[in-house]
Amino acid sequence: MEREATQARGRPRQASTDEQITRAATEILRELGPQAVNVASVAARSGVARTTIYRRHRDRRELLTAALRPVADKGEAPEHLTIVQRLDWVLASTEEVLQRAIGPGGVAAVLTDADPEFSAALRAALASALRPVLAQVEGDLDRGALTAEVEPDLVLSMILGVYLAETLRRGVPDETWRTRTSAALGRLLGASATP
Amino acid sequence: MEREATQARGRPRQASTDEQITRAATEILRELGPQAVNVASVAARSGVARTTIYRRHRDRRELLTAALRPVADKGEAPEHLTIVQRLDWVLASTEEVLQRAIGPGGVAAVLTDADPEFSAALRAALASALRPVLAQVEGDLDRGALTAEVEPDLVLSMILGVYLAETLRRGVPDETWRTRTSAALGRLLGASATP
Repeated sequence: MEREATQARGRPRQASTDEQITRAATEILRELGPQAVNVASVAARSGVARTTIYRRHRDRRELLTAALRPVADKGEAPEHLTIVQRLDWVLASTEEVLQRAIGPGGVAAVLTDADPEFSAALRAALASALRPVLAQVEGDLDRGALTAEVEPDLVLSMILGVYLAETLRRGVPDETWRTRTSAALGRLLGASATP
Repeated sequence: MEREATQARGRPRQASTDEQITRAATEILRELGPQAVNVASVAARSGVARTTIYRRHRDRRELLTAALRPVADKGEAPEHLTIVQRLDWVLASTEEVLQRAIGPGGVAAVLTDADPEFSAALRAALASALRPVLAQVEGDLDRGALTAEVEPDLVLSMILGVYLAETLRRGVPDETWRTRTSAALGRLLGASATP
């Protein structure tokens, strides 16, 4: 099925090289941290020639942006969810991004600003990922489905933050925690019970 | 003044050696990260003999606990503050602990679990620091000065978390941010305006 879909878009070969580069960059980022992402390491892991990589990503910043594509392209929550279910989806998505796409090493590198190019690339990717969430929260506030008086942007930092704080305080939280937290945030934000 | 107070407790010499060890361990932690904290480095920086350090701190875990004493002993907010002022104090205190006492390198080490002994010592110190805050939140909920329906522990993760999330998203937040955030959290938690 997936293969057909790719061919239907009519650019199987091109997509495949881009995908090989992005996948290798993402794997290196997650496993070895941002400092290990460079043209040489991506060439070695992907089997794509250095010159080909340079043609597509002029500098390391662009390569880091490619490594973070799974973060930036997180997409939107499925439709017809209640607000609490959507909060749960965003918390799950946060966990996936921070644990699996970026990895704790990437989070640590940004907090310590160990690699300013990566900090910039990650902040841009996070902003892309959070844009649809922000739009959703703004829409919910406008139509009164969220009744709390709150800056939409703070809601994003609360969602991202409770996950980071739990990890700092107790280690990676379990799924029970996520369900309890989305319910609690829903109450605090005055979320309506209907979609 | 301070000297008199120390002498009044009748153990000036003892306190002084302990303080030298703790201060050196804290400085090394903040400047070089947890991996650099060990008996040799603390002896070198404090000028206290290794045997003396071993007598007081049997293993590295105890030395890390000493390095984290400024975190564990954070104390309580001043009395007669409104709840929003107290939230502001806790946010400032969080910033001081994460930026200056532990340092971003220490936070990063725990998130990546790079040094399990340090993770354990930091989590214990954080729990100590948060205990009076937790008691205060529980008291406020009991007397109805906080009207939100919320687990007290989640409030702690929200406070710690918004700071971490802002740092991840934009770098170390400024003081304006703190004031806006404590006001917003106060509203969400249904904080009364009187102390």
